[in-house]
Amino acid sequence: MRIGVLTAGGDCPGLNAVIRSVVHRAMTGHGDEVIGFEDGFKGLLDGHYRPLDLNAVSGILARGGTILGSARLERGRLREAAENAAELAKQYGIDALIPIGGEGTLTASRMLSEAGMPVVGVPKTIDNDISSTDRTFGFDTAVMVATEAIDRLKTTAESHQRVMVVEVMGRHAGWIALESGMAGGAHGICLPERPFEVDDLVKMVEERFARGKKFAVICVAEGAHPAEGSMEYAKGEIDQFGHERFQGIGNRLAAELERRLGKEAKPVILGHVQRGGTPTAYDRVLATRFGWHAVEAAHRGEFGMMTALRGTDVTMVPLAHAVTRLKTVPGNRMFEAESVF
Amino acid sequence: MRIGVLTAGGDCPGLNAVIRSVVHRAMTGHGDEVIGFEDGFKGLLDGHYRPLDLNAVSGILARGGTILGSARLERGRLREAAENAAELAKQYGIDALIPIGGEGTLTASRMLSEAGMPVVGVPKTIDNDISSTDRTFGFDTAVMVATEAIDRLKTTAESHQRVMVVEVMGRHAGWIALESGMAGGAHGICLPERPFEVDDLVKMVEERFARGKKFAVICVAEGAHPAEGSMEYAKGEIDQFGHERFQGIGNRLAAELERRLGKEAKPVILGHVQRGGTPTAYDRVLATRFGWHAVEAAHRGEFGMMTALRGTDVTMVPLAHAVTRLKTVPGNRMFEAESVF
Amino acid sequence: MRIGVLTAGGDCPGLNAVIRSVVHRAMTGHGDEVIGFEDGFKGLLDGHYRPLDLNAVSGILARGGTILGSARLERGRLREAAENAAELAKQYGIDALIPIGGEGTLTASRMLSEAGMPVVGVPKTIDNDISSTDRTFGFDTAVMVATEAIDRLKTTAESHQRVMVVEVMGRHAGWIALESGMAGGAHGICLPERPFEVDDLVKMVEERFARGKKFAVICVAEGAHPAEGSMEYAKGEIDQFGHERFQGIGNRLAAELERRLGKEAKPVILGHVQRGGTPTAYDRVLATRFGWHAVEAAHRGEFGMMTALRGTDVTMVPLAHAVTRLKTVPGNRMFEAESVF
Amino acid sequence: MRIGVLTAGGDCPGLNAVIRSVVHRAMTGHGDEVIGFEDGFKGLLDGHYRPLDLNAVSGILARGGTILGSARLERGRLREAAENAAELAKQYGIDALIPIGGEGTLTASRMLSEAGMPVVGVPKTIDNDISSTDRTFGFDTAVMVATEAIDRLKTTAESHQRVMVVEVMGRHAGWIALESGMAGGAHGICLPERPFEVDDLVKMVEERFARGKKFAVICVAEGAHPAEGSMEYAKGEIDQFGHERFQGIGNRLAAELERRLGKEAKPVILGHVQRGGTPTAYDRVLATRFGWHAVEAAHRGEFGMMTALRGTDVTMVPLAHAVTRLKTVPGNRMFEAESVF
Repeated sequence: MRIGVLTAGGDCPGLNAVIRSVVHRAMTGHGDEVIGFEDGFKGLLDGHYRPLDLNAVSGILARGGTILGSARLERGRLREAAENAAELAKQYGIDALIPIGGEGTLTASRMLSEAGMPVVGVPKTIDNDISSTDRTFGFDTAVMVATEAIDRLKTTAESHQRVMVVEVMGRHAGWIALESGMAGGAHGICLPERPFEVDDLVKMVEERFARGKKFAVICVAEGAHPAEGSMEYAKGEIDQFGHERFQGIGNRLAAELERRLGKEAKPVILGHVQRGGTPTAYDRVLATRFGWHAVEAAHRGEFGMMTALRGTDVTMVPLAHAVTRLKTVPGNRMFEAESVF
Repeated sequence: MRIGVLTAGGDCPGLNAVIRSVVHRAMTGHGDEVIGFEDGFKGLLDGHYRPLDLNAVSGILARGGTILGSARLERGRLREAAENAAELAKQYGIDALIPIGGEGTLTASRMLSEAGMPVVGVPKTIDNDISSTDRTFGFDTAVMVATEAIDRLKTTAESHQRVMVVEVMGRHAGWIALESGMAGGAHGICLPERPFEVDDLVKMVEERFARGKKFAVICVAEGAHPAEGSMEYAKGEIDQFGHERFQGIGNRLAAELERRLGKEAKPVILGHVQRGGTPTAYDRVLATRFGWHAVEAAHRGEFGMMTALRGTDVTMVPLAHAVTRLKTVPGNRMFEAESVF
Repeated sequence: MRIGVLTAGGDCPGLNAVIRSVVHRAMTGHGDEVIGFEDGFKGLLDGHYRPLDLNAVSGILARGGTILGSARLERGRLREAAENAAELAKQYGIDALIPIGGEGTLTASRMLSEAGMPVVGVPKTIDNDISSTDRTFGFDTAVMVATEAIDRLKTTAESHQRVMVVEVMGRHAGWIALESGMAGGAHGICLPERPFEVDDLVKMVEERFARGKKFAVICVAEGAHPAEGSMEYAKGEIDQFGHERFQGIGNRLAAELERRLGKEAKPVILGHVQRGGTPTAYDRVLATRFGWHAVEAAHRGEFGMMTALRGTDVTMVPLAHAVTRLKTVPGNRMFEAESVF
Repeated sequence: MRIGVLTAGGDCPGLNAVIRSVVHRAMTGHGDEVIGFEDGFKGLLDGHYRPLDLNAVSGILARGGTILGSARLERGRLREAAENAAELAKQYGIDALIPIGGEGTLTASRMLSEAGMPVVGVPKTIDNDISSTDRTFGFDTAVMVATEAIDRLKTTAESHQRVMVVEVMGRHAGWIALESGMAGGAHGICLPERPFEVDDLVKMVEERFARGKKFAVICVAEGAHPAEGSMEYAKGEIDQFGHERFQGIGNRLAAELERRLGKEAKPVILGHVQRGGTPTAYDRVLATRFGWHAVEAAHRGEFGMMTALRGTDVTMVPLAHAVTRLKTVPGNRMFEAESVF
């Protein structure tokens, strides 16, 4: 068999671990050949690829980023790929294509699959928002980085009687905020899934100060937004869904809290450190298993599918199911966490 | 409600996170009172306990160990506890007891429960070998510590053309060896679940050297043992199951490999660093959820049960099921990992 | 002897280690009594203090923040303190006061000392900009946190062919930027000590891309500023020294580079994570030594002095010398680092 | 100029950072050529070397180990090298050789230098025991790894009322034990520099237990040894210096303490994890500076010298001075640390 692999979309710790695992399983388990397309689908269309053997993937398991690169593709070119899917497969002589990517990539993969390319997808997102898989690799690393930051900020907040607002990634789903907030013991957690009342946050902080706990840490997802009319001072704009949104909710919330509380409130925007660098052990294991199972699925001819974690097992699910809806934080998880506002 | 909580058995990162979560949920969610028994079941029998409030659990989420202490209890005294279970509950005025512990503790908890104590168990083991729960807290931290060690050893092995044998915890189940071996990219993994042939390890290392990869890292669980007759030089003793066992398989295997290969092979025994210290974000979240659900189960009157992770949900399972058999590494997980010998 | 200790100014990893060390040395080495003033000089003026014994400092060595708290003091109140220095010492019955703090605190300490308070200072700043000491505790931790962030960002930058601009702390001295830039292998480093030419940065990035290294990481101190006229698009304001300054040089520089290069350039502002949380081993050792030597100096009657690291020794230097000028990055260190612009 | 570089002796975090820095400075600063000899002096004698350019050292700054490899050389072959030193330099056309290594390597370098090879040495040892330099790279990383282990072990010891004996590296000098013991807050530190009385350790632990602190952590250098007659049960052998020595002081001391105290005492032998893996920021900076200065010294023709840290400056010192005596922990540093026995 000849297998093509590519990585597309934003950075995510564990991409290299998948690539390595695909090459290991394909070569040592099946005697396959593997080629890697450069810069995502772009490499597939432009014919930029290179052979990948054991030496090529040596030492990359623990390395962040992707040795294959990743780049955005214009929508038009994606259609071009879909139209020539079967031909492309023939051109490169590949019996299977393993694209590793997020929602967009999986949607594109489904298109290619339906157009005749033998595709086995591997889901990737630090946001953990792909339905049909319990978890995605990269998420655990992002939560770990955010938790370490909250750990550090907490001691400063406590010593200096200060409110800290930590903005973590998560535009549409609040998983990183939820889990890093829980792990870091944040006193308030704000998620995209539920508009928050600033009044409630203010009350919580004031009660803490009254109890002698003269500090608070609030963990807010970048996609969180206040309930309508709830932000008095730091006004934002109304988006297409009628939600009041801010450029940089972390900065705005800190400004609002400082004004209302009459106490120092400092924002910290974690940003890209959450999506780069060496993956946690958890993510390396999950990524390695995904790569292994993708190769096995290819050999069983299960195309149009992607790998998924279900409980402790890695199984295959149709690409069609994967991308129909976002996996957001459900109410019971918010309830459990207690500090979600 | 008045809830008693205790921690028993060996150390495990996340114990304090469970205690904190029990107190938080019980007090702020239900207005309960919580008392903590000191040094496990010993405190329950000897009347050593203290009230736990929000201040008592402040700042312990990220701390290793257990603020309640833990100590071994003689078998006889455990029977004593079981015989007086109902009375003990009455004596302390507790409506629920939440013991946090491993296999032994859960077995004892089941005895107490059957004898009339209203018990909700929380499973704990860094070994991840309790059936009926997908994972236990503490395991992720142990794997992380072991993986970081393997990462460090690998560069030394490579630079100095050396074989490194890393012994990790896991007497009866090889989960830590499996996952840290996979995450660290160990070239050989030896588990208690499958006797390994030293010949195969020797062959693997020799092939690596022949290919120009002049080093190897082997990750061996403390409970792993060679196939009968497979260890030529470093002989061990035959245990009750007829297996050839060694005091310190890591040391023995390194000695054996050095002799057979004629190359330096160094053992590293990780030991107790795997079970202490601050828990990973994953373990903090899982421990917090377990504590929360234990309190909820108590309020629903679901006694004789313990918390369990199933997929992404925390559910309750009968204590009776939990401790019937050890959860060992199944064949398909060994197959996936490729480097299991 | 009766010793008072206080912490003032911004947070800095190692404060608790100093407090613990003062208490340990004073009590076990000399049989002294120790009291801790709360919230810096405020506690001294308002009579807020508590006795500190071995139990009070148990477990704080590795903890960030300060158990004594820290707060700003209005200038007027500081004068009040200076005027009543001798009286204050008598009022609390203290034979020595050990204030732990940065430039402002040391200046205040000098005033108190000259007014009759028996003071032994301990210098503290993550910025490493206090002259007369080779290094200050907190700096190593800040550099470590910044370096870990650069490590993480680098793989993302490389995989996604992107420029990353990391803003680290350092308003007047660029030590953190210099050392984290060197340790992280930043391709450009911008310091407050030397105005940088944006043209030079643009040229460096373009040459990298031309050589096939299609990414760059630039580490910029928050106090760095471009040479006059060098920032074409993202204009700033002229400050009192005639320098063109920006609110948030990281954001501005990224914007400017993106525009000039026509490539994605992302800013990451590390912020307060650099100054909180558990100190590195280096900082714990230095802080512990400073605390120990401050107590010894008090017993030798060396007042008006502060602890200082000189080579491998901790010595005492006059407070008067310490605060006369800022220790900035000298030319030879910039030259060595090569990537300073 | 044509510069040869090689790494010799045991592994040490920062070796790659020196190599990278030598190549960077030589090529971009001076337009030099650089070649790297493989496996230490062996490569020099056997003609195994490769050209090193910017690409060859790309991405190695943060990587443990050495890309050039390192191997032991038999004494006889070293003499061979010395006899042909000038010739070897001519043969490879090198104008300078930069060997990076420990005491043995520096002694060999001195021999080569005196025999006509233009040598600039870079000192390397995780043990920090080379005189004429304040610190060596690798040491900070070793201390950090050991400190993290002590941090983890401490919570277990406390929760389980246990004594933990941590054996760290340091055969002849106790710097790692001293600094990790201080940073980790070990209650007892045992160094090679001073024979310890087991009685004193026993007394310290018993006093702790009496005070209610029912645990202790003891940090012991691998080269530490008990005062004569002080170890009652776990007897050792008398070495050439008349000291009673044990194979594995950690194991022996734990056994002895367990017997004397009647309490659990567990040994943990950290071993090779201390000398591998990614270097700390401190070590990366120091290693980078050493590499830079070595190249500069070569260009100034300062041969027979090695780089050294003095205070905050990197200077050059004669190789002859460097290796005359070991830098051991002086009495005042033991006194400061308080817990040295």
